[in-house]
Amino acid sequence: MPRFLLLLTGLAPVVAAAQAPPTPPLMPMPRSVDVGQGRLRIDSGFSVAVAGFRDARLEHAVKRTLDRLAHRTGITLADSSTRDSALARLVVQAEGAGEAIATENEDESYTIDVTSERAALRAPTVVGVLRGVETLLQLVTTDSAGFFVPAVRIADAPRFPWRGLLVDAGRHFEPVEVIKRTLDGMAAVKLNVFHWHLSEDQGFRVESKRFPLLQLDGSDGLFYTQAQIRDVVAYARDRGIRVVPEFDMPGHTSSWLVGYARYGSGRGPYRIQRTWGVFDPTLDPTRDVVYQFIDAFIGEIAPLFPDPYWHVGGDEVNGVEWNANRRIRAFKRDHHFADNAALQAYFNQRLSAILTKHGKRMVGWDEILNPDLPSSAVVQSWRGLEYLPQTVRAGHRAILSAPYYLDQIESAEDHYVDPLPDSLGLSSEEAARLMGGEACMWGEHIGPETIDSRIWPRLAAVAEKLWSPASVEDVHDMYQRLAVTNLRLAEVGLGQNEHTARMLHLEVGNGPDFQTMMSLLALSQPVTFGQRHRLQVGMTQQTPLTRLIDAARPDPPSRWGSLTMIERFVADSGRTAVLRDSLRQTFTAWQALAPEVHAVAVRKPLARDGVPAADALARVAGVGTAALDRMAGTVAATRGWQDSARAVLDSANGPQGLLRLTVVDAVRWLVEVAPVKAN
Amino acid sequence: MPRFLLLLTGLAPVVAAAQAPPTPPLMPMPRSVDVGQGRLRIDSGFSVAVAGFRDARLEHAVKRTLDRLAHRTGITLADSSTRDSALARLVVQAEGAGEAIATENEDESYTIDVTSERAALRAPTVVGVLRGVETLLQLVTTDSAGFFVPAVRIADAPRFPWRGLLVDAGRHFEPVEVIKRTLDGMAAVKLNVFHWHLSEDQGFRVESKRFPLLQLDGSDGLFYTQAQIRDVVAYARDRGIRVVPEFDMPGHTSSWLVGYARYGSGRGPYRIQRTWGVFDPTLDPTRDVVYQFIDAFIGEIAPLFPDPYWHVGGDEVNGVEWNANRRIRAFKRDHHFADNAALQAYFNQRLSAILTKHGKRMVGWDEILNPDLPSSAVVQSWRGLEYLPQTVRAGHRAILSAPYYLDQIESAEDHYVDPLPDSLGLSSEEAARLMGGEACMWGEHIGPETIDSRIWPRLAAVAEKLWSPASVEDVHDMYQRLAVTNLRLAEVGLGQNEHTARMLHLEVGNGPDFQTMMSLLALSQPVTFGQRHRLQVGMTQQTPLTRLIDAARPDPPSRWGSLTMIERFVADSGRTAVLRDSLRQTFTAWQALAPEVHAVAVRKPLARDGVPAADALARVAGVGTAALDRMAGTVAATRGWQDSARAVLDSANGPQGLLRLTVVDAVRWLVEVAPVKAN
Repeated sequence: MPRFLLLLTGLAPVVAAAQAPPTPPLMPMPRSVDVGQGRLRIDSGFSVAVAGFRDARLEHAVKRTLDRLAHRTGITLADSSTRDSALARLVVQAEGAGEAIATENEDESYTIDVTSERAALRAPTVVGVLRGVETLLQLVTTDSAGFFVPAVRIADAPRFPWRGLLVDAGRHFEPVEVIKRTLDGMAAVKLNVFHWHLSEDQGFRVESKRFPLLQLDGSDGLFYTQAQIRDVVAYARDRGIRVVPEFDMPGHTSSWLVGYARYGSGRGPYRIQRTWGVFDPTLDPTRDVVYQFIDAFIGEIAPLFPDPYWHVGGDEVNGVEWNANRRIRAFKRDHHFADNAALQAYFNQRLSAILTKHGKRMVGWDEILNPDLPSSAVVQSWRGLEYLPQTVRAGHRAILSAPYYLDQIESAEDHYVDPLPDSLGLSSEEAARLMGGEACMWGEHIGPETIDSRIWPRLAAVAEKLWSPASVEDVHDMYQRLAVTNLRLAEVGLGQNEHTARMLHLEVGNGPDFQTMMSLLALSQPVTFGQRHRLQVGMTQQTPLTRLIDAARPDPPSRWGSLTMIERFVADSGRTAVLRDSLRQTFTAWQALAPEVHAVAVRKPLARDGVPAADALARVAGVGTAALDRMAGTVAATRGWQDSARAVLDSANGPQGLLRLTVVDAVRWLVEVAPVKAN
Repeated sequence: MPRFLLLLTGLAPVVAAAQAPPTPPLMPMPRSVDVGQGRLRIDSGFSVAVAGFRDARLEHAVKRTLDRLAHRTGITLADSSTRDSALARLVVQAEGAGEAIATENEDESYTIDVTSERAALRAPTVVGVLRGVETLLQLVTTDSAGFFVPAVRIADAPRFPWRGLLVDAGRHFEPVEVIKRTLDGMAAVKLNVFHWHLSEDQGFRVESKRFPLLQLDGSDGLFYTQAQIRDVVAYARDRGIRVVPEFDMPGHTSSWLVGYARYGSGRGPYRIQRTWGVFDPTLDPTRDVVYQFIDAFIGEIAPLFPDPYWHVGGDEVNGVEWNANRRIRAFKRDHHFADNAALQAYFNQRLSAILTKHGKRMVGWDEILNPDLPSSAVVQSWRGLEYLPQTVRAGHRAILSAPYYLDQIESAEDHYVDPLPDSLGLSSEEAARLMGGEACMWGEHIGPETIDSRIWPRLAAVAEKLWSPASVEDVHDMYQRLAVTNLRLAEVGLGQNEHTARMLHLEVGNGPDFQTMMSLLALSQPVTFGQRHRLQVGMTQQTPLTRLIDAARPDPPSRWGSLTMIERFVADSGRTAVLRDSLRQTFTAWQALAPEVHAVAVRKPLARDGVPAADALARVAGVGTAALDRMAGTVAATRGWQDSARAVLDSANGPQGLLRLTVVDAVRWLVEVAPVKAN
């Protein structure tokens, strides 16, 4: 591969560094890792023994581990579990099953001890073993003699007990296969709560036998049967993952009211929403029949979800229907409710009683926080880190999501944020009320074909923030490990790595057109959530998610890779000729891309979205070349030049159609370090 | 992309030609296609009306068509079906539903008439519409103004009524998702029979409630529930595909006998077979209790499969258990059976009566052919084209599979064989007994992760032989259309195009190692079935299918692409400098690959399988360079040189480890045309 392609794909710096890491590229990084001398070989003689406690979940885990090991090494290991610990290369020892129904109190700790002769994985619970086998699989690497696990001692336990991912199956439905492979990926990075957002204005996704119009009128036929839900919950439990369902109420309920308008606060008829935003349809909190409906619904559905927690949503009630309804206004007056927040608090109190009756504890979004909220309720913070202190100071336990909104299309670095920064000024007692966090994959702009590329690998960086000690915070090191982790995640069936190629093949076919657009997308990412919401005018639930923006990946390797390369170049003051030549060639290649993209766009309508990004890239490349000239001293750098260069970069940094360039910051760095003379 | 890479990937010649085809790149090619003037635009104003007959199947088809069109164009079309034919851009008109239970007599014909204003699709049955919408979707293309369908008149009907694919889920299980996407692909190329091979020595794959030990003891837990089977059959019918189950008997029944040894001809105990070949376990054809068992089993399972045909297998009965069983020997003597074939004929007569009782017609493999076989039985020829005449001359109807064994890992060209060549010397009456053919995807060497790459796109070439007129036979043209068809097949979820990249990422990681091995696999393919069987010593059902051979694809574009390029070069007698230079650079690149592959193999154990192919490629490249020198006249071509060059190529043409090079024939061509002087 010609050298300039290295920066074009941005992979080389990451991979080169990842091949000789100081410690194995584990993610999330365990609490303690001591690498020793020696290598435990993985060959056809490899075998596993379960010593001590065993149950079906443990045996499934051993079988899955052997399957993945066999798959990865190409070595036949399928029958290699044994009952004889003395013969086994890996001994797995759990003290007990762990909780019958997992909670935040589950012990997930484990230790691993590997010598050149054998490995031991010990844990107090089967869930600890599940966490440990993922670490063990991450330890497997290669040398010229074959596959091995390095001698190592690991002691590990999570920092937070609640480490989740929300998947919004309401706005766009996600089939069971997608959910299952997402669960496999979660297990691989030690996440333990699947927050299943099951109802939205745009779709009601669960089969109710008591209220069948929920799914018949509210889902376009896209819902999970009760059998499928049981299957998913069992699948998750097998991987040590709890499933917390969310049925958002009293707002976000358009889809419920299509079939059951009588429980709404407005007049109806209602319809499934096809666009995005906050809508008026809201359950009527003033009538007993509504609570009877909720009680009966939860009574039917609760047994499907054994988890003790139940998410009630509670966000974004706009109050339009409540304000317009004379009876509801009268109810507020009669009850001396100052505002709609007070009415919602009343709703939540009655909802909380219903949940208690069905053995469930309430979780809700920020907006449920209110002096009247039962203290047992857990509040999930989404509007900003600053809302967290209010929650924990009010005595509620909290879950943090604000920094972890994957749908925003930010970088892994942006999400690599400590959940408890000192700046919050929390006491240790207050801080202890933070149970953990959840990454959120809201569904406006994603579907079954793009979700993998939107969740992964960035979620692994969030998972590390929730599992690893706060001291694990080096972004360079994170990106190196993320690259390795990302490839391994593909082994459970996740499709992020081939996503762009796959979708581009469908958009522009094969051959040189494909290569041209791949080169452009290697240097581009989708615009942010807010930008897309604003720029893709007329987007609805039925808009196909098959444009260039959908083929592009958030935070592709070129962003961090280009910064890393410039960092290296600047560190030696631009003296290394090979780096300088490589950069110059890179910029030339970027400029050459624009006419090629224009040519493809004439033939392939879906490639047109790439033209603004290609043009902007050419301008950025021009600035980069100019900066190199000025660093080399062949041209004098003036303030006037620097100002105009900055203006070009500022403009190139915004949305280019529905794409954003990933390399503007790297070029900006060059411009800023070029020695400037007074004009 | 540098020019030499074009040949390295072998894509350029195919694609360049495909961009301006004489007729649209349809596959299978319809009976008649008349391209006119004008273009029907596909934009957000596109809409469909169903005129005349409508049923759920037709409406599903319209919805799927709109979904795929929206997906491909990025244009929102989801709500664009209309009741008003006058307003619609596409009018779909079926005269009736077609057969309630489809048979070989279903009318699948259709016509398409496209002007620049509107398109009409007309068919006597809904199945005809299903065939027609696939053609319509294949007609969609692009120009600088966007997406369009060219003005065209098409009249189409299949040459053969039985066009099938066998998937062997016995030797390696294939999950329902795999089956469903395979059915979608079949529908896209107008295949209409899914032959589901459901039992084998290595696994019994159907849930029986009457005989639960069949799946409990015979499947390792990998079987289809009855609900899943109903789901698949309905899914297939929705796409106009019949499902013919195969339960192979009396041989290939090891997995049945694990739980029900009492129906075997030997003593047992029996076990699931883990290796490949012909095994001894065989049902006992001499005892009534065995027929009672078969009767009860078929009685239970037949209602799951509404198709009138039932495949009984009947192949490869080795007779070992029959010969060893004194009682069976006595039975043969008492019945004056000359040999085991006669005994099997007796078995088939009784089996045929059972099938008749359950409303099924018998299909079986070649070996069931026998003077005593009921004349209604259909014989599927697998051992060679030469067995077909015997079948049809004996008055049986036939299905041809011999030339269409996808598991053999031959080229699409190899399978592009007419089912009724003149050489068979059949009368028209005899020829009329050939109902069609089936491609066979036997399961020894494939699993869920590799099956797409083994079936596709080669199956599309077979589908064309079974649908299109015999006059459609140009291989060049076929490969051009196959490349386009292959990309479109990805839109139904098939994974062949990204298969090699995906698996290689797991095998060797990212970065330059990946690029090196991709370059090698672009020029390699798996060894044949027979070679793998012989060379991969110790392979079992549990052997992971994750080696380089599994990442490689059968008949990658480089084979036909390299031949095409050499053809062009030779056609102008090697005078065009740009082609000559390009070839020279190509050979240089091939030679440079060998040391790179060696280096990767030191770091990545799974890359070692590539070393023999890389070394052989370097030798082939050396021969190619030498041939160019001799064509240019800079070095004299002697017979001695030519002989030694041929020897190098002959050796490079065989298995290189578990891979075969795809470009040896192209280089051989150069060697053969180089002007040779007497020594």
